[in-house]
Amino acid sequence: MNIIKCKAAVARAAGEPLCLEEVEVAPPKSGEVRIKIICTSLCHSDVTFWRLKQFPGMFPRILGHEAFGVVESVGEGVEEFKEGDTVVPVFLAHCGACVDCEAEDGNLCGKHDSAPAHGMPRDGSTRFTDANGKPVYHTMFVSSFCQYTVVDVAHLVKVDPQVPPQFACLLSCGVSTGVGAAWKVAGVGPGSTVAIFGLGAVGLAVAEGCRLRGVSKIIGVDLNPAKFESGKKFGLTDFVNPNEIDGRAINEVIKEMTGGRGVDYCFECIGLSSLMSEAFKSSRKGGGKTVILGLEMHGTPLSIDARELLFGKSIIGTLFGGLKSKTDIPILAQQYLDKELNLEDFVTHEVDLQDINKAFDLLLQGKSLRCTIWMDGKK
Amino acid sequence: MNIIKCKAAVARAAGEPLCLEEVEVAPPKSGEVRIKIICTSLCHSDVTFWRLKQFPGMFPRILGHEAFGVVESVGEGVEEFKEGDTVVPVFLAHCGACVDCEAEDGNLCGKHDSAPAHGMPRDGSTRFTDANGKPVYHTMFVSSFCQYTVVDVAHLVKVDPQVPPQFACLLSCGVSTGVGAAWKVAGVGPGSTVAIFGLGAVGLAVAEGCRLRGVSKIIGVDLNPAKFESGKKFGLTDFVNPNEIDGRAINEVIKEMTGGRGVDYCFECIGLSSLMSEAFKSSRKGGGKTVILGLEMHGTPLSIDARELLFGKSIIGTLFGGLKSKTDIPILAQQYLDKELNLEDFVTHEVDLQDINKAFDLLLQGKSLRCTIWMDGKK
Repeated sequence: MNIIKCKAAVARAAGEPLCLEEVEVAPPKSGEVRIKIICTSLCHSDVTFWRLKQFPGMFPRILGHEAFGVVESVGEGVEEFKEGDTVVPVFLAHCGACVDCEAEDGNLCGKHDSAPAHGMPRDGSTRFTDANGKPVYHTMFVSSFCQYTVVDVAHLVKVDPQVPPQFACLLSCGVSTGVGAAWKVAGVGPGSTVAIFGLGAVGLAVAEGCRLRGVSKIIGVDLNPAKFESGKKFGLTDFVNPNEIDGRAINEVIKEMTGGRGVDYCFECIGLSSLMSEAFKSSRKGGGKTVILGLEMHGTPLSIDARELLFGKSIIGTLFGGLKSKTDIPILAQQYLDKELNLEDFVTHEVDLQDINKAFDLLLQGKSLRCTIWMDGKK
Repeated sequence: MNIIKCKAAVARAAGEPLCLEEVEVAPPKSGEVRIKIICTSLCHSDVTFWRLKQFPGMFPRILGHEAFGVVESVGEGVEEFKEGDTVVPVFLAHCGACVDCEAEDGNLCGKHDSAPAHGMPRDGSTRFTDANGKPVYHTMFVSSFCQYTVVDVAHLVKVDPQVPPQFACLLSCGVSTGVGAAWKVAGVGPGSTVAIFGLGAVGLAVAEGCRLRGVSKIIGVDLNPAKFESGKKFGLTDFVNPNEIDGRAINEVIKEMTGGRGVDYCFECIGLSSLMSEAFKSSRKGGGKTVILGLEMHGTPLSIDARELLFGKSIIGTLFGGLKSKTDIPILAQQYLDKELNLEDFVTHEVDLQDINKAFDLLLQGKSLRCTIWMDGKK
């Protein structure tokens, strides 16, 4: 098979603007698929990787892991996908055959380790080469900031072509993570009370997941007051701005909003151990669950009062909202087609590939939820 | 109704031997029941309260919260119990009617706060008076180290009189806590792997709960090598003595024993945050649950790596094994009568009330699991 020359936005140094370059994309090896990326979007984890100077920071690399594409070619032995299939790549593997994938609970594939890496999962090598013939590293087994990329079949899911590219793209990471956390991890229900810490796309997707399951009290916590209004589209009913509570602790305010009890479910969607601790304190005794979705950015340990834990509280960590990608993404896609799941309101901006650095600015300034990046012009 | 004069073992100062004294036990008030204690046993939480110099340490007080008794009289409005009923008192309330008691999950009654107190739950006053007419305080709403005690109906459960007193007594706290944690909180099953940190009666009751549910790999962790042999009666299959692993971390050894994965369920039954942290590390990525049963004795916060949590791990705290006492204790009693639940092997010693301090020695020296204390001679 042929090598493809195409455009990519390459991260050459930590925290510096991405460089538009021509790269070569090697053909897929056994068990791999090469896809043409139609659109991608920027998730906070990309920003985390982009900023990292130490491993798993690694340069030059192609970032991007939330995307929608079309299968261009398949490697040896691949039967699950064929040219023309509409697909979303997923950073978390789902081989579907190991003891973990077959288990009812959990979504960490036992065959493919999803720990940070900079190459393909099976052989660790890269499929990208720059104009000087030097390797360019992968990110999170996807690397979607390139017009073509190669992913392992364990990281790819077919999606109904009726779902427009910019919305299917959201199911690839952020929205699935939030909706999944409410649905699969917490299992919220109509009578539940919920507090969501951090109202980026993931946090608002938690709200959307709660709304879908009939939750009537959904409290959002964010420093940006504009988030309350945008959150209402996803079911948000109440709002706490930590800058406007007269120096009181967030957990005190949340307890006050819930008749002194605290909420049934807290979701931490930022990745700050201090906020996780605050979420834990905001959850009610006698069954309160704190779900951690955010990747702790500074490596600070989570510290909690073990005696408070004893009163029937729990803390649950989750990647990708507890979803098994190949099984659960098609369910979310169908909910979108059935006009149940609101995906439209997550897409607040769009740019073409050459303006990808603008997508970083919008996200970092808190202006965008998701900015669609069209790889070859809008479809 | 009459005041009863009887013998009690009174704790007069932190950490000092209990004093055999005559006390007066007032009649039960509205919603209360006075019971004749047939036998009681010593649980580690009593030792914790006995040693506490600060509140909730409080002297003089009557300790003891694991017991079996017979109803002597009932207060105004009590219809659930009548004279002669065989009962076990429970430190955790179960009113059965509030939103929390009616919820499917959780076992913290929303009507009665089970936080440490030194009086009766409804009015805070005591029902005990010493020979000098001074009040003697309660412990954990039970105070069973007395031939008669008064408890609130929310803290009392009827138990089948066919269950011998010394075994029914175990269902009052320790054994129920361990079995319940395996059954109700963790929901272990035949394919599960389990590690239990601390093999006192509660830890071994966790093993028994796992054995009952068909778990085939139950690893015990304890500094006392004799616990492996006694643990086998409750299904223990493997043993780790932290003093005999060449300075390696416990979690490394447990991972090695489980093919590198770590166990599905860890139970911390001591109350040391360092051990809770070790248990967390020993649980497997992709669904591993760490259940905390031990009351952290030093107030040290639990510190965990929030990033490790993200890989689908969870930590769950529980009091009384997640059991709703009035519903679940009768189920355990029936399992005993059906010869499924092993209660016999928990009772390793017995003494009469006047030798109650010997029960403290046996427990503190790690010689006993449970020592039955007969209040009026063995039945």
